[in-house]
Amino acid sequence: MITMTAYNWVPPIVRGLVRDLRVRWALEEAGLPYRVELIDQRNKPDDYREWQPWSQVPAYEEDGLRMFESGAIVLHIAGKSPALAPPDANGKARMTSWLFAALNSVEPPLAELVTIDFMHADKDWAKVRRPMVEDFVKRRLKGVAEALGDRAYLEGEFTAADLMMSTVLRMAGRTTLVEEAGLGDYHRRCEARPAFERALAGQMADFKDAA
Amino acid sequence: MITMTAYNWVPPIVRGLVRDLRVRWALEEAGLPYRVELIDQRNKPDDYREWQPWSQVPAYEEDGLRMFESGAIVLHIAGKSPALAPPDANGKARMTSWLFAALNSVEPPLAELVTIDFMHADKDWAKVRRPMVEDFVKRRLKGVAEALGDRAYLEGEFTAADLMMSTVLRMAGRTTLVEEAGLGDYHRRCEARPAFERALAGQMADFKDAA
Repeated sequence: MITMTAYNWVPPIVRGLVRDLRVRWALEEAGLPYRVELIDQRNKPDDYREWQPWSQVPAYEEDGLRMFESGAIVLHIAGKSPALAPPDANGKARMTSWLFAALNSVEPPLAELVTIDFMHADKDWAKVRRPMVEDFVKRRLKGVAEALGDRAYLEGEFTAADLMMSTVLRMAGRTTLVEEAGLGDYHRRCEARPAFERALAGQMADFKDAA
Repeated sequence: MITMTAYNWVPPIVRGLVRDLRVRWALEEAGLPYRVELIDQRNKPDDYREWQPWSQVPAYEEDGLRMFESGAIVLHIAGKSPALAPPDANGKARMTSWLFAALNSVEPPLAELVTIDFMHADKDWAKVRRPMVEDFVKRRLKGVAEALGDRAYLEGEFTAADLMMSTVLRMAGRTTLVEEAGLGDYHRRCEARPAFERALAGQMADFKDAA
């Protein structure tokens, strides 16, 4: 049996962006049953940090194996399911390059931009810094768009790399950057998958004030 | 045969920090022969972006398989060598969590700090922003130190996770943050490995004005 953690409440501005979404989506694509253990952000279990060193979500458990980091967990699930990975070793290796690219080359500047926009937009330092970060984000998105070209997905069929890249692009949802980069169709194509819709609905329903 | 790319020149301040160091180190630990293809940062091959979407280093080629992203490449090499990964599947999965942790949870705030210190230290916005970033870095390093405890390495023996974490810690080399977090011994232990010394010497020797 698989258990993953998620928060039972977060501020509305980050709903649909919390990283357990990635793990839910991967498990939905793979068709693997799982239970969600809800964590109260303001009252975490005493020993939760032994499972998740940053005391954040998601954490993951499967038959006694404990993991953390959404990238590692999604890659692990992709190793169990042909729904998330190419069949051949070289395809898997190329998928892994793009999964790391999403997390280590695209997400960091985008996270810096989102931190400014969500938490510091009115501050003088943020107004000076923001254009530099936006420029960096634009260059990264251009790199993704050029590599994607007119293909539907990064590695032929949909894989864990697209799952990861599209959840990263989702962070830019309050900007027009994804559209401007020519990645709007790609992003919508990924999010139109029924497994994504189930994952998102699952995260939203787990907030204790869900409608 | 394995080919990886590296720069033939970078400014002195970033020497020993360019990410091809990680791939060199992994290949040295694994005992795999490789050749380095040197790239001129100001005059890159026209088609290099097809291999490396950000037009940076490292890129990697092995019997027709092309990869990019140092994290993906190091994980791929770890999959080929017991020198870089635990023998069992669960140990490999935990190692993967820590490898992603280094790249996706520790490196981003540290990279933001280094960007400020190397490029913007004298600017007013950077002076306001820096303490916030430093505080975030400190919390991440504390999480690593607590998880490591009094063990020599993150997952028992030395693995690709330690390789990655220590190259990330290396970015803080001009600060006392690693020492203050209690990770100084761990960092020195990793960098004392002969394979690291060969990798670092290799990167330094490939700069065209090397002594």
